[in-house]
Amino acid sequence: MSQTLEQLQEILAQRRAASPDSSYVASLHAKGLNKILEKVGEESTEFLLACKDNDKENAIYECADLWFHTLVALSDLDLTAQDVLDELARRFEMSGLEEKANRTS
Amino acid sequence: MSQTLEQLQEILAQRRAASPDSSYVASLHAKGLNKILEKVGEESTEFLLACKDNDKENAIYECADLWFHTLVALSDLDLTAQDVLDELARRFEMSGLEEKANRTS
Amino acid sequence: MSQTLEQLQEILAQRRAASPDSSYVASLHAKGLNKILEKVGEESTEFLLACKDNDKENAIYECADLWFHTLVALSDLDLTAQDVLDELARRFEMSGLEEKANRTS
Amino acid sequence: MSQTLEQLQEILAQRRAASPDSSYVASLHAKGLNKILEKVGEESTEFLLACKDNDKENAIYECADLWFHTLVALSDLDLTAQDVLDELARRFEMSGLEEKANRTS
Repeated sequence: MSQTLEQLQEILAQRRAASPDSSYVASLHAKGLNKILEKVGEESTEFLLACKDNDKENAIYECADLWFHTLVALSDLDLTAQDVLDELARRFEMSGLEEKANRTS
Repeated sequence: MSQTLEQLQEILAQRRAASPDSSYVASLHAKGLNKILEKVGEESTEFLLACKDNDKENAIYECADLWFHTLVALSDLDLTAQDVLDELARRFEMSGLEEKANRTS
Repeated sequence: MSQTLEQLQEILAQRRAASPDSSYVASLHAKGLNKILEKVGEESTEFLLACKDNDKENAIYECADLWFHTLVALSDLDLTAQDVLDELARRFEMSGLEEKANRTS
Repeated sequence: MSQTLEQLQEILAQRRAASPDSSYVASLHAKGLNKILEKVGEESTEFLLACKDNDKENAIYECADLWFHTLVALSDLDLTAQDVLDELARRFEMSGLEEKANRTS
Protein backbone atom coordinates (compact mmCIF):
# COMPACT_ATOMS: atom_id res chain seq x y z
CA MET A 1 0.00 0.00 0.00
CA SER A 2 2.37 2.62 1.03
CA GLN A 3 5.72 3.94 0.41
CA THR A 4 3.69 7.14 0.52
CA LEU A 5 4.01 7.83 4.23
CA GLU A 6 7.70 6.94 4.14
CA GLN A 7 8.31 9.38 1.29
CA LEU A 8 6.10 12.02 2.91
CA GLN A 9 8.05 11.68 6.15
CA GLU A 10 11.30 12.34 4.25
CA ILE A 11 9.77 15.35 2.53
CA LEU A 12 8.59 16.75 5.88
CA ALA A 13 12.05 16.33 7.42
CA GLN A 14 13.70 18.06 4.44
CA ARG A 15 11.23 20.93 4.37
CA ARG A 16 11.43 21.50 8.11
CA ALA A 17 15.04 22.56 7.52
CA ALA A 18 14.15 24.77 4.53
CA SER A 19 13.55 28.51 4.47
CA PRO A 20 10.11 29.58 5.74
CA ASP A 21 9.85 31.73 2.62
CA SER A 22 10.16 28.79 0.27
CA SER A 23 8.23 26.06 2.07
CA TYR A 24 4.76 25.87 3.64
CA VAL A 25 6.02 23.22 6.09
CA ALA A 26 8.97 25.39 7.14
CA SER A 27 6.64 28.39 7.54
CA LEU A 28 4.38 26.35 9.84
CA HIS A 29 7.32 25.29 12.04
CA ALA A 30 8.54 28.91 12.09
CA LYS A 31 5.13 30.12 13.27
CA GLY A 32 5.22 27.55 16.06
CA LEU A 33 3.24 24.66 17.49
CA ASN A 34 0.05 26.66 18.17
CA LYS A 35 -0.30 27.60 14.51
CA ILE A 36 0.27 23.96 13.48
CA LEU A 37 -2.33 22.73 15.99
CA GLU A 38 -4.82 25.38 14.82
CA LYS A 39 -4.50 23.80 11.38
CA VAL A 40 -5.10 20.32 12.87
CA GLY A 41 -8.28 21.65 14.52
CA GLU A 42 -9.43 23.29 11.29
CA GLU A 43 -8.86 20.21 9.17
CA SER A 44 -10.55 17.98 11.74
CA THR A 45 -13.67 20.17 11.54
CA GLU A 46 -13.61 20.25 7.74
CA PHE A 47 -13.28 16.45 7.66
CA LEU A 48 -16.34 16.12 9.91
CA LEU A 49 -18.38 18.43 7.70
CA ALA A 50 -17.35 16.59 4.52
CA CYS A 51 -18.34 13.26 6.08
CA LYS A 52 -21.70 14.67 7.25
CA ASP A 53 -22.32 15.90 3.69
CA ASN A 54 -21.42 12.41 2.41
CA ASP A 55 -19.06 14.27 0.05
CA LYS A 56 -16.59 11.46 -0.65
CA GLU A 57 -14.11 13.45 -2.72
CA ASN A 58 -13.93 16.16 -0.08
CA ALA A 59 -13.74 13.63 2.79
CA ILE A 60 -10.61 12.14 1.20
CA TYR A 61 -9.16 15.60 0.58
CA GLU A 62 -9.77 16.81 4.13
CA CYS A 63 -8.53 13.55 5.66
CA ALA A 64 -5.28 13.96 3.70
CA ASP A 65 -5.07 17.53 5.01
CA LEU A 66 -5.70 16.32 8.57
CA TRP A 67 -3.12 13.52 8.46
CA PHE A 68 -0.62 15.87 6.83
CA HIS A 69 -0.95 18.49 9.58
CA THR A 70 -0.81 15.84 12.35
CA LEU A 71 2.50 14.74 10.78
CA VAL A 72 3.78 18.33 10.84
CA ALA A 73 2.77 18.53 14.54
CA LEU A 74 4.55 15.24 15.26
CA SER A 75 7.59 16.49 13.38
CA ASP A 76 7.59 19.59 15.59
CA LEU A 77 7.86 17.18 18.55
CA ASP A 78 10.61 15.20 16.74
CA LEU A 79 8.22 12.31 16.10
CA THR A 80 7.41 10.55 12.84
CA ALA A 81 4.69 8.70 10.94
CA GLN A 82 6.59 5.50 11.75
CA ASP A 83 5.90 6.05 15.45
CA VAL A 84 2.17 6.18 14.73
CA LEU A 85 2.28 3.12 12.47
CA ASP A 86 4.23 1.19 15.13
CA GLU A 87 1.56 2.07 17.69
CA LEU A 88 -1.23 1.00 15.31
CA ALA A 89 0.63 -2.25 14.56
CA ARG A 90 1.15 -2.94 18.27
CA ARG A 91 -2.50 -2.26 18.98
CA PHE A 92 -3.77 -4.61 16.30
CA GLU A 93 -1.20 -7.25 17.17
CA MET A 94 0.42 -7.28 13.78
CA SER A 95 3.73 -9.07 13.73
CA GLY A 96 6.62 -6.64 13.82
CA LEU A 97 8.82 -9.28 12.27
CA GLU A 98 6.34 -9.81 9.47
CA GLU A 99 6.23 -6.05 9.06
CA LYS A 100 9.99 -5.84 8.75
CA ALA A 101 10.23 -8.77 6.33
CA ASN A 102 7.63 -7.17 4.09
CA ARG A 103 9.42 -3.85 3.77
CA THR A 104 10.81 -3.23 0.33
CA SER A 105 13.52 -0.91 1.56
CA MET B 1 7.62 1.90 5.71
CA SER B 2 4.52 -0.02 6.19
CA GLN B 3 2.15 -2.77 5.46
CA THR B 4 0.47 -1.50 8.60
CA LEU B 5 -2.20 0.64 6.96
CA GLU B 6 -2.89 -2.06 4.39
CA GLN B 7 -3.39 -4.64 7.13
CA LEU B 8 -5.38 -2.20 9.24
CA GLN B 9 -7.65 -1.51 6.28
CA GLU B 10 -8.32 -5.24 5.92
CA ILE B 11 -9.05 -5.54 9.62
CA LEU B 12 -11.48 -2.61 9.44
CA ALA B 13 -13.32 -4.15 6.48
CA GLN B 14 -13.60 -7.52 8.26
CA ARG B 15 -14.79 -6.02 11.54
CA ARG B 16 -17.32 -3.77 9.86
CA ALA B 17 -19.16 -6.98 8.91
CA ALA B 18 -18.83 -8.51 12.39
CA SER B 19 -21.36 -8.48 15.22
CA PRO B 20 -21.55 -5.19 17.13
CA ASP B 21 -21.34 -7.26 20.32
CA SER B 22 -17.99 -8.74 19.42
CA SER B 23 -16.22 -5.82 17.75
CA TYR B 24 -15.61 -2.17 18.71
CA VAL B 25 -15.46 -1.24 15.01
CA ALA B 26 -18.77 -2.98 14.30
CA SER B 27 -20.35 -1.28 17.33
CA LEU B 28 -19.23 2.13 16.02
CA HIS B 29 -20.75 1.48 12.58
CA ALA B 30 -23.94 0.23 14.26
CA LYS B 31 -24.20 3.43 16.31
CA GLY B 32 -23.85 5.46 13.14
CA LEU B 33 -21.73 8.19 11.58
CA ASN B 34 -22.38 10.81 14.29
CA LYS B 35 -20.95 8.57 16.99
CA ILE B 36 -17.88 7.86 14.81
CA LEU B 37 -17.36 11.57 14.13
CA GLU B 38 -17.75 12.39 17.84
CA LYS B 39 -14.81 10.05 18.42
CA VAL B 40 -12.81 11.84 15.68
CA GLY B 41 -13.50 15.15 17.44
CA GLU B 42 -12.53 13.73 20.83
CA GLU B 43 -9.28 12.23 19.59
CA SER B 44 -8.39 15.40 17.72
CA THR B 45 -8.74 17.38 20.96
CA GLU B 46 -6.73 14.83 22.95
CA PHE B 47 -3.97 14.91 20.31
CA LEU B 48 -3.80 18.71 20.61
CA LEU B 49 -3.55 18.55 24.39
CA ALA B 50 -0.82 15.89 24.28
CA CYS B 51 1.19 18.00 21.81
CA LYS B 52 0.75 21.13 23.96
CA ASP B 53 2.03 19.13 26.96
CA ASN B 54 4.99 17.96 24.85
CA ASP B 55 4.00 14.47 25.99
CA LYS B 56 5.56 12.45 23.17
CA GLU B 57 4.27 9.04 24.19
CA ASN B 58 0.75 10.34 24.51
CA ALA B 59 0.97 12.35 21.26
CA ILE B 60 1.78 9.13 19.38
CA TYR B 61 -1.01 7.27 21.17
CA GLU B 62 -3.63 9.94 20.46
CA CYS B 63 -2.50 10.36 16.85
CA ALA B 64 -2.96 6.60 16.35
CA ASP B 65 -6.43 6.93 17.90
CA LEU B 66 -7.24 9.87 15.62
CA TRP B 67 -6.06 8.16 12.43
CA PHE B 68 -7.88 4.98 13.43
CA HIS B 69 -11.21 6.77 13.91
CA THR B 70 -10.79 8.74 10.66
CA LEU B 71 -10.37 5.36 8.95
CA VAL B 72 -13.56 4.08 10.56
CA ALA B 73 -15.35 7.23 9.33
CA LEU B 74 -13.97 6.73 5.83
CA SER B 75 -15.02 3.08 5.95
CA ASP B 76 -18.54 4.22 6.85
CA LEU B 77 -18.46 6.22 3.58
CA ASP B 78 -17.03 3.17 1.71
CA LEU B 79 -13.63 4.85 1.45
CA THR B 80 -10.21 3.48 2.44
CA ALA B 81 -6.77 4.46 3.71
CA GLN B 82 -5.55 3.91 0.14
CA ASP B 83 -7.73 6.80 -1.04
CA VAL B 84 -6.01 9.10 1.47
CA LEU B 85 -2.54 7.85 0.55
CA ASP B 86 -3.31 8.35 -3.16
CA GLU B 87 -4.35 11.93 -2.43
CA LEU B 88 -1.19 12.56 -0.39
CA ALA B 89 0.94 11.02 -3.15
CA ARG B 90 -0.77 13.14 -5.80
CA ARG B 91 -0.30 16.25 -3.73
CA PHE B 92 3.41 15.69 -3.17
CA GLU B 93 3.95 14.63 -6.76
CA MET B 94 5.16 11.16 -5.92
CA SER B 95 5.10 8.81 -8.84
CA GLY B 96 2.04 6.62 -8.82
CA LEU B 97 3.80 4.14 -11.05
CA GLU B 98 6.75 3.99 -8.69
CA GLU B 99 4.25 3.51 -5.87
CA LYS B 100 2.63 0.59 -7.65
CA ALA B 101 5.93 -1.05 -8.57
CA ASN B 102 7.04 -0.89 -4.95
CA ARG B 103 4.02 -2.65 -3.62
CA THR B 104 4.78 -6.11 -2.30
CA SER B 105 1.26 -7.38 -2.79
CA MET C 1 -24.79 41.03 34.36
CA SER C 2 -26.07 41.10 30.90
CA GLN C 3 -28.06 43.08 28.57
CA THR C 4 -25.10 42.19 26.40
CA LEU C 5 -26.47 38.95 24.97
CA GLU C 6 -29.88 40.55 24.45
CA GLN C 7 -28.31 43.39 22.51
CA LEU C 8 -26.00 41.05 20.64
CA GLN C 9 -28.96 38.91 19.64
CA GLU C 10 -30.69 41.98 18.16
CA ILE C 11 -27.52 42.95 16.30
CA LEU C 12 -27.22 39.42 14.87
CA ALA C 13 -30.86 39.45 13.69
CA GLN C 14 -30.42 42.86 12.04
CA ARG C 15 -27.14 41.94 10.34
CA ARG C 16 -28.45 38.62 9.09
CA ALA C 17 -30.79 40.66 6.88
CA ALA C 18 -28.05 43.05 5.74
CA SER C 19 -25.98 42.89 2.56
CA PRO C 20 -23.15 40.33 2.63
CA ASP C 21 -20.88 43.10 1.33
CA SER C 22 -21.50 45.33 4.33
CA SER C 23 -21.67 42.85 7.20
CA TYR C 24 -19.44 40.00 8.39
CA VAL C 25 -22.49 38.24 9.88
CA ALA C 26 -24.42 38.54 6.63
CA SER C 27 -21.41 37.26 4.68
CA LEU C 28 -21.23 34.19 6.97
CA HIS C 29 -24.93 33.41 6.43
CA ALA C 30 -24.46 33.90 2.69
CA LYS C 31 -21.56 31.42 2.64
CA GLY C 32 -23.72 28.89 4.44
CA LEU C 33 -23.79 26.72 7.55
CA ASN C 34 -20.57 24.82 6.80
CA LYS C 35 -18.54 28.02 6.73
CA ILE C 36 -20.14 29.14 10.02
CA LEU C 37 -19.40 25.77 11.64
CA GLU C 38 -15.80 25.84 10.36
CA LYS C 39 -15.44 29.09 12.31
CA VAL C 40 -16.94 27.44 15.42
CA GLY C 41 -14.35 24.65 15.11
CA GLU C 42 -11.51 27.13 14.61
CA GLU C 43 -12.48 29.27 17.59
CA SER C 44 -12.94 26.20 19.78
CA THR C 45 -9.37 25.13 18.97
CA GLU C 46 -7.98 28.61 19.57
CA PHE C 47 -9.79 28.79 22.92
CA LEU C 48 -8.20 25.48 23.96
CA LEU C 49 -4.74 26.67 23.01
CA ALA C 50 -5.17 29.98 24.86
CA CYS C 51 -6.29 28.10 28.00
CA LYS C 52 -3.37 25.67 27.74
CA ASP C 53 -1.02 28.67 27.49
CA ASN C 54 -2.73 30.18 30.56
CA ASP C 55 -3.06 33.31 28.41
CA LYS C 56 -6.01 34.93 30.17
CA GLU C 57 -6.48 37.87 27.82
CA ASN C 58 -6.49 35.57 24.82
CA ALA C 59 -8.75 33.00 26.53
CA ILE C 60 -11.39 35.73 27.02
CA TYR C 61 -10.95 36.93 23.45
CA GLU C 62 -11.25 33.44 21.93
CA CYS C 63 -14.20 32.53 24.16
CA ALA C 64 -16.00 35.66 22.94
CA ASP C 65 -15.19 34.59 19.37
CA LEU C 66 -16.48 31.08 20.07
CA TRP C 67 -19.75 32.21 21.68
CA PHE C 68 -20.26 34.74 18.89
CA HIS C 69 -19.93 32.13 16.16
CA THR C 70 -22.15 29.65 18.02
CA LEU C 71 -24.79 32.43 18.07
CA VAL C 72 -24.40 32.93 14.32
CA ALA C 73 -24.84 29.16 13.84
CA LEU C 74 -27.95 29.18 16.05
CA SER C 75 -29.27 32.18 14.12
CA ASP C 76 -28.80 30.19 10.91
CA LEU C 77 -31.13 27.58 12.47
CA ASP C 78 -33.55 30.35 13.57
CA LEU C 79 -32.52 29.91 17.21
CA THR C 80 -31.35 32.54 19.69
CA ALA C 81 -29.14 33.13 22.74
CA GLN C 82 -32.35 33.12 24.80
CA ASP C 83 -32.92 29.47 23.88
CA VAL C 84 -29.49 28.58 25.29
CA LEU C 85 -30.01 30.66 28.44
CA ASP C 86 -33.42 29.01 29.00
CA GLU C 87 -31.78 25.59 28.72
CA LEU C 88 -29.02 26.60 31.17
CA ALA C 89 -31.63 28.01 33.58
CA ARG C 90 -33.71 24.84 33.33
CA ARG C 91 -30.67 22.69 33.95
CA PHE C 92 -29.56 24.56 37.03
CA GLU C 93 -33.09 24.77 38.38
CA MET C 94 -33.24 28.52 38.41
CA SER C 95 -36.73 29.86 38.84
CA GLY C 96 -38.22 30.98 35.56
CA LEU C 97 -40.58 33.26 37.45
CA GLU C 98 -37.69 34.79 39.36
CA GLU C 99 -35.89 35.15 36.03
CA LYS C 100 -38.80 36.99 34.49
CA ALA C 101 -39.32 39.25 37.53
CA ASN C 102 -35.65 40.24 37.44
CA ARG C 103 -35.65 41.26 33.80
CA THR C 104 -35.21 44.99 33.36
CA SER C 105 -36.95 44.99 30.04
CA MET D 1 -32.52 38.96 28.79
CA SER D 2 -30.86 37.24 31.62
CA GLN D 3 -29.78 36.93 35.12
CA THR D 4 -29.00 33.38 34.01
CA LEU D 5 -25.28 33.80 33.35
CA GLU D 6 -24.87 35.83 36.52
CA GLN D 7 -26.53 33.09 38.56
CA LEU D 8 -24.64 30.38 36.71
CA GLN D 9 -21.37 32.16 37.46
CA GLU D 10 -22.20 32.16 41.17
CA ILE D 11 -23.10 28.48 41.05
CA LEU D 12 -19.80 27.67 39.31
CA ALA D 13 -17.81 29.60 41.94
CA GLN D 14 -19.62 27.83 44.78
CA ARG D 15 -19.24 24.39 43.28
CA ARG D 16 -15.58 24.87 42.46
CA ALA D 17 -15.01 24.96 46.23
CA ALA D 18 -17.21 21.91 46.88
CA SER D 19 -16.14 18.30 47.29
CA PRO D 20 -15.32 16.49 44.01
CA ASP D 21 -17.53 13.66 45.26
CA SER D 22 -20.61 15.84 45.51
CA SER D 23 -20.25 18.13 42.49
CA TYR D 24 -19.61 17.55 38.78
CA VAL D 25 -17.98 20.99 38.53
CA ALA D 26 -15.68 20.26 41.47
CA SER D 27 -14.80 16.87 39.98
CA LEU D 28 -13.83 18.55 36.68
CA HIS D 29 -11.55 21.05 38.45
CA ALA D 30 -10.04 18.19 40.48
CA LYS D 31 -9.27 16.25 37.29
CA GLY D 32 -7.54 19.31 35.87
CA LEU D 33 -7.60 21.64 32.88
CA ASN D 34 -6.99 18.94 30.25
CA LYS D 35 -10.11 17.04 31.28
CA ILE D 36 -12.16 20.27 31.19
CA LEU D 37 -10.80 21.15 27.73
CA GLU D 38 -11.51 17.62 26.46
CA LYS D 39 -15.15 18.28 27.39
CA VAL D 40 -15.06 21.61 25.51
CA GLY D 41 -13.76 19.78 22.43
CA GLU D 42 -16.42 17.07 22.76
CA GLU D 43 -19.29 19.51 23.15
CA SER D 44 -18.02 21.63 20.26
CA THR D 45 -18.12 18.54 18.02
CA GLU D 46 -21.58 17.53 19.23
CA PHE D 47 -22.87 21.06 18.60
CA LEU D 48 -21.56 20.91 15.02
CA LEU D 49 -23.23 17.57 14.40
CA ALA D 50 -26.56 18.76 15.84
CA CYS D 51 -26.45 21.86 13.60
CA LYS D 52 -25.61 19.76 10.53
CA ASP D 53 -28.60 17.53 11.35
CA ASN D 54 -30.75 20.67 11.69
CA ASP D 55 -31.79 19.19 15.04
CA LYS D 56 -32.86 22.37 16.80
CA GLU D 57 -33.58 20.87 20.21
CA ASN D 58 -30.21 19.14 20.26
CA ALA D 59 -28.38 22.22 18.94
CA ILE D 60 -29.67 24.23 21.90
CA TYR D 61 -28.80 21.43 24.31
CA GLU D 62 -25.25 21.01 22.98
CA CYS D 63 -24.68 24.78 22.83
CA ALA D 64 -25.67 25.00 26.50
CA ASP D 65 -23.20 22.16 27.21
CA LEU D 66 -20.48 23.95 25.24
CA TRP D 67 -20.98 27.33 26.94
CA PHE D 68 -21.15 25.61 30.34
CA HIS D 69 -17.82 23.84 29.86
CA THR D 70 -16.13 26.98 28.49
CA LEU D 71 -17.26 28.70 31.72
CA VAL D 72 -15.72 25.89 33.78
CA ALA D 73 -12.48 26.29 31.80
CA LEU D 74 -12.54 30.07 32.36
CA SER D 75 -13.21 29.46 36.06
CA ASP D 76 -10.15 27.21 36.17
CA LEU D 77 -8.18 30.25 34.90
CA ASP D 78 -9.92 32.50 37.49
CA LEU D 79 -11.98 34.17 34.74
CA THR D 80 -15.74 34.65 34.54
CA ALA D 81 -18.68 34.94 32.14
CA GLN D 82 -18.61 38.68 32.83
CA ASP D 83 -15.16 38.89 31.22
CA VAL D 84 -16.56 37.34 28.03
CA LEU D 85 -19.64 39.59 28.05
CA ASP D 86 -17.42 42.66 28.55
CA GLU D 87 -15.34 41.61 25.54
CA LEU D 88 -18.48 41.05 23.43
CA ALA D 89 -19.87 44.44 24.55
CA ARG D 90 -16.57 46.17 23.72
CA ARG D 91 -16.47 44.51 20.34
CA PHE D 92 -19.98 45.52 19.39
CA GLU D 93 -19.53 49.00 20.81
CA MET D 94 -22.27 48.68 23.40
CA SER D 95 -22.12 51.28 26.10
CA GLY D 96 -20.45 49.92 29.21
CA LEU D 97 -22.09 52.66 31.25
CA GLU D 98 -25.52 51.70 29.95
CA GLU D 99 -24.63 48.09 30.78
CA LYS D 100 -23.77 49.00 34.35
CA ALA D 101 -26.87 51.16 34.83
CA ASN D 102 -29.07 48.31 33.69
CA ARG D 103 -27.70 45.83 36.19
CA THR D 104 -30.19 44.87 38.85
CA SER D 105 -27.52 44.05 41.41
